[in-house]
Amino acid sequence: MSEQFDDHSGESPFTDSVFPDSGSAPTLKGRSVVTLDDIPLPRIEDLLDRAAYIDSHRREVAHTCDGRVLATLFYEPSTRTRLSFETAMLRLGGQVIGFAGAQLASVSKGESISDTLKTVSNYADIVAMRHPKEGAALVASRAASVPIINAGDGGHMHPTQTLTDLATIRARKGRLTHLTIGMCGDLTFGRTVHSLISTLCRWGHVDFVLISPDELRTPEYVLERIDASPTCTYRETSDLGGAIGDLDILYMTRVQKERFFNEDDYLRLRDTYILDEAKLRSAKSDMAILHPLPRVNEITTDVDKDPRAAYFEQVRNGMLVRMALESALLGDELPGYETKMEVEA
Amino acid sequence: MSEQFDDHSGESPFTDSVFPDSGSAPTLKGRSVVTLDDIPLPRIEDLLDRAAYIDSHRREVAHTCDGRVLATLFYEPSTRTRLSFETAMLRLGGQVIGFAGAQLASVSKGESISDTLKTVSNYADIVAMRHPKEGAALVASRAASVPIINAGDGGHMHPTQTLTDLATIRARKGRLTHLTIGMCGDLTFGRTVHSLISTLCRWGHVDFVLISPDELRTPEYVLERIDASPTCTYRETSDLGGAIGDLDILYMTRVQKERFFNEDDYLRLRDTYILDEAKLRSAKSDMAILHPLPRVNEITTDVDKDPRAAYFEQVRNGMLVRMALESALLGDELPGYETKMEVEA
Amino acid sequence: MSEQFDDHSGESPFTDSVFPDSGSAPTLKGRSVVTLDDIPLPRIEDLLDRAAYIDSHRREVAHTCDGRVLATLFYEPSTRTRLSFETAMLRLGGQVIGFAGAQLASVSKGESISDTLKTVSNYADIVAMRHPKEGAALVASRAASVPIINAGDGGHMHPTQTLTDLATIRARKGRLTHLTIGMCGDLTFGRTVHSLISTLCRWGHVDFVLISPDELRTPEYVLERIDASPTCTYRETSDLGGAIGDLDILYMTRVQKERFFNEDDYLRLRDTYILDEAKLRSAKSDMAILHPLPRVNEITTDVDKDPRAAYFEQVRNGMLVRMALESALLGDELPGYETKMEVEA
Repeated sequence: MSEQFDDHSGESPFTDSVFPDSGSAPTLKGRSVVTLDDIPLPRIEDLLDRAAYIDSHRREVAHTCDGRVLATLFYEPSTRTRLSFETAMLRLGGQVIGFAGAQLASVSKGESISDTLKTVSNYADIVAMRHPKEGAALVASRAASVPIINAGDGGHMHPTQTLTDLATIRARKGRLTHLTIGMCGDLTFGRTVHSLISTLCRWGHVDFVLISPDELRTPEYVLERIDASPTCTYRETSDLGGAIGDLDILYMTRVQKERFFNEDDYLRLRDTYILDEAKLRSAKSDMAILHPLPRVNEITTDVDKDPRAAYFEQVRNGMLVRMALESALLGDELPGYETKMEVEA
Repeated sequence: MSEQFDDHSGESPFTDSVFPDSGSAPTLKGRSVVTLDDIPLPRIEDLLDRAAYIDSHRREVAHTCDGRVLATLFYEPSTRTRLSFETAMLRLGGQVIGFAGAQLASVSKGESISDTLKTVSNYADIVAMRHPKEGAALVASRAASVPIINAGDGGHMHPTQTLTDLATIRARKGRLTHLTIGMCGDLTFGRTVHSLISTLCRWGHVDFVLISPDELRTPEYVLERIDASPTCTYRETSDLGGAIGDLDILYMTRVQKERFFNEDDYLRLRDTYILDEAKLRSAKSDMAILHPLPRVNEITTDVDKDPRAAYFEQVRNGMLVRMALESALLGDELPGYETKMEVEA
Repeated sequence: MSEQFDDHSGESPFTDSVFPDSGSAPTLKGRSVVTLDDIPLPRIEDLLDRAAYIDSHRREVAHTCDGRVLATLFYEPSTRTRLSFETAMLRLGGQVIGFAGAQLASVSKGESISDTLKTVSNYADIVAMRHPKEGAALVASRAASVPIINAGDGGHMHPTQTLTDLATIRARKGRLTHLTIGMCGDLTFGRTVHSLISTLCRWGHVDFVLISPDELRTPEYVLERIDASPTCTYRETSDLGGAIGDLDILYMTRVQKERFFNEDDYLRLRDTYILDEAKLRSAKSDMAILHPLPRVNEITTDVDKDPRAAYFEQVRNGMLVRMALESALLGDELPGYETKMEVEA
């Protein structure tokens, strides 16, 4: 690739200074979404409202994007994310083209991301792009003449996963604030966890319980992000069983073997962070369990039937927020939907 | 994969005791189809009726599945089968998502089939799944909240291939009974042959002629299945030329090199089981030649123009039975179709 | 593959003797398009008219191919070409099935192209096929019972690329004759260049300027093709800067490293054939720059904003001519379109 992704500094991916959280909330029509950080909170809440509306009005919205074409450009494979984006467009009446990992060779032939996006802008009305390199989505959004949705770029941003998590928290608890939220597992490398914390801190009024082995603690810049929010707190612990009783939300993540120096550490620690029905006995009856999936063994399958398990409805919420986002960026109004946002001048 | 496919014993795949061939025939709506063995014969006949109806009412049925989404989950590649399932859904007005072999890595990441199916149940209304492991389709059907169609699991079942064969026999001969049916080629490993024999034995009144080299004879449990049907008979022979004159149907299969101990045996035997116009001179003028395809060289191309060649219309029948099955499992009624089945209470 | 592609002699791919450029222009409905050589010029002009009509009547033509299915059979990957064909069908209201490179193994299993096409003819209404072997498209067109579009077969033909180039020239200059057209870069192996020259010579009245290093000069049979057209001329040069001032069209192609004996030659020559704003200062203000893409570095990105750059609108024209061709071969009339052709008896 000939481009320099010089837009990314290699430091904290959070651009704290540009939260436009007050004032007007300009329409998303025609915009690209590389990160949630520059989308005003009322606009994010409106997307969650739209997702909920879509869920209860499937038939009414089935032709919202008639005649539209989504391109899914997946430079690294991520089948579940790709299927979610594609289903979202099909359920809105649109169509899908694209490529995934295996076919990459044929796309590149040394072509720059910018040229690929300029080409695809002639085919599609909107693009969902996943790329292993940080900053790729930003480069793409500048080259394209149609909206780009970042479907994950390296360890960087994955805004629709965060929207999915927010939608699930709100659906279960009715709110995004005044919650005690446990994050459990690999908190060092867990991109989804960092992004969710950062976004929740914009609303504030969340107490985070950060549950991980010492080897996989939360990075300093994430802790600083929480500190910068006057109404948020955090505490770190390595004891899931001791912390679970306090939680309104438990967000589980995978503990990957390759993060450890030796097998013994891995095996010892892994079992500590497996959620099962025994551990759940200490939890609140209305706690909600989230997981970005795929799960390997960090939640036992007997938990699936527990009414607190929310990770498969999280999948449905993922499709719904992508329907909301795709239609909003295209400027295709959902029939019958009325926003609760104050309308900008 | 963490699951045990403990539903499959490793012995005969036929569950003879559960043929519900008499009495009521409950609707297929919402069901999964892992095998044909538990579908009552009147219901199978109704599927064949539907396929024939679809063929003559393409325009009328073109919107039967509007708004539906089929997921094709092909854990091993089988492009022709996948394209058949996908075309079937598109021709009914529905849409398609999915993945095929090459993209497998990205799906699994150690995820169980059950979790994948629980996820995909949130995207699709119906799933066609192919998997190299016996029993995978059954596991999938239990996890999914939408109908699963088994598109082949290992050497086990492939019910839509059998439906395809039945549709072609009935289209050519007007009936499924009172026929002399030759099976020729690799009868040891030919999954399609075993499944077709088993299903035909449920109606009975078929005389099977099992034509193969000694090295590739029909397994004992298949012969026992025929014996268990009081109105069916079989005889084994290694002489295609000598048997062909008696046949109403000749079902050809590939003889694969790797089944033989040495090259000489393979070359000698292979030629014996090649169907050409010379051998066809001894056959009845209304015999029908079937082949599950792909063909390599076991039928010479000069036979393609022979009116007895039915293997390319078999391809069309394959699409038609899949249209019939997909719409039936979804409960989407074919406009204008009236069943000949006695309606259940 | 068991077939012999004995239809291709291995010599000049041009069949000069069969240009039916005068007289009637029979409809394209139901035809295959392996090459442009046997399509009468008025019919090619009509396809360009249709492409222009489609561009200004997107909404009106959006249901032209409702209920149709296109199969894209890409035996070698070419993502941008595949996406163009697929988008074209979707924008006409049709649907798409298919496979690409990575999934090839599963298609073949030793099956002949003829058998694959006979199979796919049961699924699709029209096929776009790309294959690494010369002559494959012709073999396919004979086996299939639906129209085949050759999407590239080896170094041979790629008719929709030539249509794309013609559409772009006509859109920019208002005509296809009385032009000075520069071809620059690898003129030895550049299939698109050879095909474009050959087709333009049928109309005549073009002066070609053939700009290449000595190592990559135009083959003799292409020069002979120009000589055979009484109203066309050519001159060869290795000096892009010296020739650029004369040109109405500059068609750039890649100079690939592997064409050279040594790295030094490559580096020296490559820079000579890079188009940048400095070189463009000597060019006419209304010259149009074409490139079949993907570009590596033979046109600098600062040229992209120059109004003479036509290579990204070439991408759009590629989709439009494919829409025109697909609908014409299917016999699906574009609503409101009236041909300027004299109607044949």
